[in-house]
Amino acid sequence: MASENKVATSAYKVIGTRPIRHDGVDKVTGKALYGADVRLPGMLYGKVLRSPHPHARIKSIDTSKAEANPKVRAVVTSEDLAPISDQLAKFVRDKILASDKVLFKGHPVAAVAASSAHDVEEALSLIEVDYEVLPSVTNVEDAMKLDAPVLHDHITTDGLGDEAPRKTNVADHGQYKLGDVDRGFQDADQVFEREFRTKSIHQGYIEPQNATAWWTPDGRLTIWCSSQGHFAIRDGTSRILGVPVSSVKVVPMEIGGGFGGKLGPYLEPVAAVLSRKTGSPVQMTMTRAEVFEATGPTSGSLVKIKIGVTKEGRITAAQAYLAFESGAYPGSSLSGATACMFASYKIENLQVDGYDVVDNKTKTSAYRAPGAPIGTFAVESLIDEICESLSLDPLDFRIMNGAKEGTRRVDGVVNGPIGMLQTAEAVKSHSHYSAPLNGRNRGRGVAMGFWRNNTGPSSVVATVVSDGTVMLVEGSMDIGGSRTAIAQQFAEALGIPVEDVSPQVADTDSIGFTSNTAGSGATFKTGWAAYEAAQDVKRQLIDRAAVMWEIPPEQVEYEDGVIRHASDPELHTTLSEIAPTLNDTGGPIVGRASVNPRGVGGSYVANIVDVEVDAETGKVDVLRFTAFQDAGTAIHPSYVEGQLQGGSVQGVGWALTEEYYMSDDGRMLNTSLLDYRMPTTLDVPMIDSVLIEVPNPGHPFGVRGVGEAPIVPTLAALANAIHDATGVRMTQLPMSPGAVKRGIQDREDEH
Amino acid sequence: MASENKVATSAYKVIGTRPIRHDGVDKVTGKALYGADVRLPGMLYGKVLRSPHPHARIKSIDTSKAEANPKVRAVVTSEDLAPISDQLAKFVRDKILASDKVLFKGHPVAAVAASSAHDVEEALSLIEVDYEVLPSVTNVEDAMKLDAPVLHDHITTDGLGDEAPRKTNVADHGQYKLGDVDRGFQDADQVFEREFRTKSIHQGYIEPQNATAWWTPDGRLTIWCSSQGHFAIRDGTSRILGVPVSSVKVVPMEIGGGFGGKLGPYLEPVAAVLSRKTGSPVQMTMTRAEVFEATGPTSGSLVKIKIGVTKEGRITAAQAYLAFESGAYPGSSLSGATACMFASYKIENLQVDGYDVVDNKTKTSAYRAPGAPIGTFAVESLIDEICESLSLDPLDFRIMNGAKEGTRRVDGVVNGPIGMLQTAEAVKSHSHYSAPLNGRNRGRGVAMGFWRNNTGPSSVVATVVSDGTVMLVEGSMDIGGSRTAIAQQFAEALGIPVEDVSPQVADTDSIGFTSNTAGSGATFKTGWAAYEAAQDVKRQLIDRAAVMWEIPPEQVEYEDGVIRHASDPELHTTLSEIAPTLNDTGGPIVGRASVNPRGVGGSYVANIVDVEVDAETGKVDVLRFTAFQDAGTAIHPSYVEGQLQGGSVQGVGWALTEEYYMSDDGRMLNTSLLDYRMPTTLDVPMIDSVLIEVPNPGHPFGVRGVGEAPIVPTLAALANAIHDATGVRMTQLPMSPGAVKRGIQDREDEH
Repeated sequence: MASENKVATSAYKVIGTRPIRHDGVDKVTGKALYGADVRLPGMLYGKVLRSPHPHARIKSIDTSKAEANPKVRAVVTSEDLAPISDQLAKFVRDKILASDKVLFKGHPVAAVAASSAHDVEEALSLIEVDYEVLPSVTNVEDAMKLDAPVLHDHITTDGLGDEAPRKTNVADHGQYKLGDVDRGFQDADQVFEREFRTKSIHQGYIEPQNATAWWTPDGRLTIWCSSQGHFAIRDGTSRILGVPVSSVKVVPMEIGGGFGGKLGPYLEPVAAVLSRKTGSPVQMTMTRAEVFEATGPTSGSLVKIKIGVTKEGRITAAQAYLAFESGAYPGSSLSGATACMFASYKIENLQVDGYDVVDNKTKTSAYRAPGAPIGTFAVESLIDEICESLSLDPLDFRIMNGAKEGTRRVDGVVNGPIGMLQTAEAVKSHSHYSAPLNGRNRGRGVAMGFWRNNTGPSSVVATVVSDGTVMLVEGSMDIGGSRTAIAQQFAEALGIPVEDVSPQVADTDSIGFTSNTAGSGATFKTGWAAYEAAQDVKRQLIDRAAVMWEIPPEQVEYEDGVIRHASDPELHTTLSEIAPTLNDTGGPIVGRASVNPRGVGGSYVANIVDVEVDAETGKVDVLRFTAFQDAGTAIHPSYVEGQLQGGSVQGVGWALTEEYYMSDDGRMLNTSLLDYRMPTTLDVPMIDSVLIEVPNPGHPFGVRGVGEAPIVPTLAALANAIHDATGVRMTQLPMSPGAVKRGIQDREDEH
Repeated sequence: MASENKVATSAYKVIGTRPIRHDGVDKVTGKALYGADVRLPGMLYGKVLRSPHPHARIKSIDTSKAEANPKVRAVVTSEDLAPISDQLAKFVRDKILASDKVLFKGHPVAAVAASSAHDVEEALSLIEVDYEVLPSVTNVEDAMKLDAPVLHDHITTDGLGDEAPRKTNVADHGQYKLGDVDRGFQDADQVFEREFRTKSIHQGYIEPQNATAWWTPDGRLTIWCSSQGHFAIRDGTSRILGVPVSSVKVVPMEIGGGFGGKLGPYLEPVAAVLSRKTGSPVQMTMTRAEVFEATGPTSGSLVKIKIGVTKEGRITAAQAYLAFESGAYPGSSLSGATACMFASYKIENLQVDGYDVVDNKTKTSAYRAPGAPIGTFAVESLIDEICESLSLDPLDFRIMNGAKEGTRRVDGVVNGPIGMLQTAEAVKSHSHYSAPLNGRNRGRGVAMGFWRNNTGPSSVVATVVSDGTVMLVEGSMDIGGSRTAIAQQFAEALGIPVEDVSPQVADTDSIGFTSNTAGSGATFKTGWAAYEAAQDVKRQLIDRAAVMWEIPPEQVEYEDGVIRHASDPELHTTLSEIAPTLNDTGGPIVGRASVNPRGVGGSYVANIVDVEVDAETGKVDVLRFTAFQDAGTAIHPSYVEGQLQGGSVQGVGWALTEEYYMSDDGRMLNTSLLDYRMPTTLDVPMIDSVLIEVPNPGHPFGVRGVGEAPIVPTLAALANAIHDATGVRMTQLPMSPGAVKRGIQDREDEH
């Protein structure tokens, strides 16, 4: 499948192999149960009434007609949620059901439950909301203007240096500095500057948000839903409802994609209060339009950057200004952009200023390496321009300026052993890099990207079954095959075949706290927990063998799944031999581990992309695409390749076709997957994937997070390829046919 | 509620209190989910075709018409189950779906799945079974006759001492001996002998057997059902289907009563193969008639006993002959009767011969203290007769002959510290024992009974939640409040309120192997596991505090939920204080324990019963009922009292009204709860309960099993009361109005 895919041979027996995923057959045969598959006795259907206006004051909500309708089982508004304690709590709560104002088209205002999905649709029209419509703003640059409509009265410029504080949509300004940028630019022979703009785009997961809630009379609330972390859904819902966290149980259903968009509750608290009012379970599922309008896309942005270089191509200084839309409430993905955009390079003088800006769109959420692709689009485009200007090979430039172990990043983190240079070298020596392009209007682009990865608490319980297999219960939601990658680490640590491990994700009542499957952290942290749980099982197996053989445990050895008497070669057994006897020799063996490990290792990705641009229409065809990643130890290489391929394709969509197409009056005009154009298999070639494995010394098996980084370089790689093909430097996304055609036209007009 | 109910005060804070059960509100409000509440996408309904004959050879099964019917989604027969490896496997399998013969009316022959419960009923009539009808026998005495129809060709008298081995329905003969009975009877001044007969009766749980199975294309089978042990359902189903135990996952639903009748699979393997054939989930639920005819009641029996006593009333020898029906396949509750019937007494010369007899009724199952009430009915009736004959107070007789610590029982077990004498003393000193009876045809009976209890493997996992509560995951199905009784033991061990513990029963993939909730063992073994899991949590809390305070763990003390620096009184914290910080100080805390504890302590029960017998009709009214039990430490006294009350009421039903009323041609004629007469609240007075707490030194908290013993003495206590009221010695159950009237008539005829 992957050409020139060199995976280091290793001493591992299970790690690095490619077993069939445990949940695979169920998923491809349609038997896996997702949130909307839940059926409960007497289950009702719920639906949200959403604001038709991007910005309005709610003067009144009259639910009396709806409540009088015999088909309506319950109506809820924000008054059914927890009382508001502070501004942050108000943001969190108002996002679920608006109280005083609606801040975006699609903002939830009320919700209804009825016996059928049809009745509930009908009932929505019975709720009368009296709005005072306000002017709205739906892009970051307009939102920052002095005369922009202001969303939140309490956000002011107080403390930002203004003499006369005024209301503003700029919710936050952060600055990061290394060295002295002024001096760095003075040392430069040449300074390059450019502005870049990107639009809101959506994660585009196939499964819409859904939630089924049952609030039983004992005060316990059970929620079934698809999320990237059922503990976060539990904790968020408990907060929004004002009930103890232990009174909420979240049962994780399979998830049909998340990419950062399913980290917190949307429908869950609403379904919960509808259930509380009706006494029945209530199920809610979003339409695609609701997903687009009312869940979190990533920010639209304005990025200005400036890089100073010597004539040899050494970077002396860099500076960036980033303004990120956060949507209706503060909190965009600025920090990811800030931390990662320059992380491929050793830059001594560096300054990044980030502005978090609210506007009248749905609150943004994380999207795969959140923020990093936006910042990297700017940096890697400008570096391409620098290399062209200085006639330097782009890889030589990157190798010369490349970040190494010990390089300090702008957020203050000092790199451990990282694979930036190995990745750049792999690109340079790959046959794709020097292959002829053969054809008119064709071009090649390269770019690199970094994602820092994350960790968090994680819990695993491992139960030995009488047939010699192990049930592995974990708290990490499996989005991209983590069940298998975690089972592999457990199997490796215990010296048994991975086929003998049955992983499953347990509900929040049944497993210890586990943080979100996010930040490329699940295989890292839950793999670590599995490693520790295997040690716990191993210790108990040794103790049990010691009892059987009537020797001290110290005289028992465990190696590769074989339990041996240290001095009597006749005495040995295995897990599968000992398993059927456990109940009679002291009881079952259950291992457990809960960890919150340090030691995450960031991951580098590079792309080589060939395109052909239709000069007539501006349409860009992706001809060839090779994605490289330093994956650390690739636990299941196929899944790492899958992440590289998936991230690349999402990058292609972001780069070329995807955007929230907004009307002047603040409405998204393309709220279906017919109009919101995500790439299909017809739009991309087979993505070749090359794994570079620089083990992360911070993890027992050398794992780095691999899921997010693949999307990071793709926007720039495509922009660079288009420039190579056409001479046009695209600085705005998407690089749609119209935009590219305009670029070509403008360039022709100039010449 | 309970008069004169003295519970010893203790140093415990949680044990001995009466918290509201965690699952209580859900159950009384109808929100708890039982097996038949399961709903799955595309779920089909299954139904079993059952034999109309009590005994027949299956010549052929023609399923072609059913298979051709478009409404029929699948038809299965025994050929869809695992191949038969040996005779025992054939018994186990044929009980689920008959292969060559049907052995009772209601025997499953085939099953069908269809989209609706109505279609599936219809489809059953399309299956054509050609039977060769055979003569049948449906009671134990006829089944033992030389000319009886024989059920199983391979069961012979070979090895039983016959010179010419012949086919027989006597599947087993066991003999237990202590001392020398012949010499013991020679030492007696008087020998008493009598024969007793009991009928098949059913546990009468309200919830019929049900199962929902989904066999997904990845070869994994998930079963949702209500049982007394989902691990036994898993293991039994895996065996019957011939698939690895780890490929079967059983999700425990709430259970609406079991009493020994829900220990193994009935519908589960059938639903499974219907699901395998259709690819869809299949749900099956029995009707009440199916429950009566095709699940396990307890044995009908013939018991002959003989007791020799000195003129002072000392027992010199005892001997019993027990013949127990086992139904269609071997395996009755003989051992429970054998072990327990004489266990209240110290008898040096003792012999029990037990005969396990197959006949053409559904295979018997355990029923609350299985076998013990039948044997005890005989022993305690005869002892009443002895006391009357010798003019001894029945309690004085029991105290004089009472079993003590060190007394060897007939099964060879030597008593640990037991509460027989304490229980007898409590009866003697209770006001009920000496209260006047005031009225004609009234009588009072007393009897004692014993149940040995059981243990087994059990697993618990305890997770500390950020709000300071603990999720307690266990493998023991909760039938009678064990969730709370186990949570109390965990809370006691950890020094936290029981309200802060949320117990739940996890599926077979999510918790370590746990044996059935049976043998009065759940509170004993799983309470022990909870105690050990609390120690594991405690150790980790100490370690965490040591890290926080930067001292060695040995300098941290844990007492009553408070964690203290041993030498610095300023430094202390609690679980609820430390819980929110766990993720930041090293990760979540999860405790676990898996045990298979020894040390079960048997439990004694006594009844005082007052009755009034209607001389015209023979109807017996129960006027007053006091039940005494040595409960060991009563973890939740209300639940022990509930067990005493429930067991007593079931005993009243067994004694007075319940029976399988069989036609001459082997059909049960009363297969509904209208005709099978279980006692209602109108039939029994409030049962007063008296707890005697002799702690079991074999358990960390002194727990004895309490669930089963309460039913043991009731049959004899009522017979003795009826004798006291009428002078009639009833030796056959049920003591229905007709039977009692006949007894009165016979006695009048004699005099």
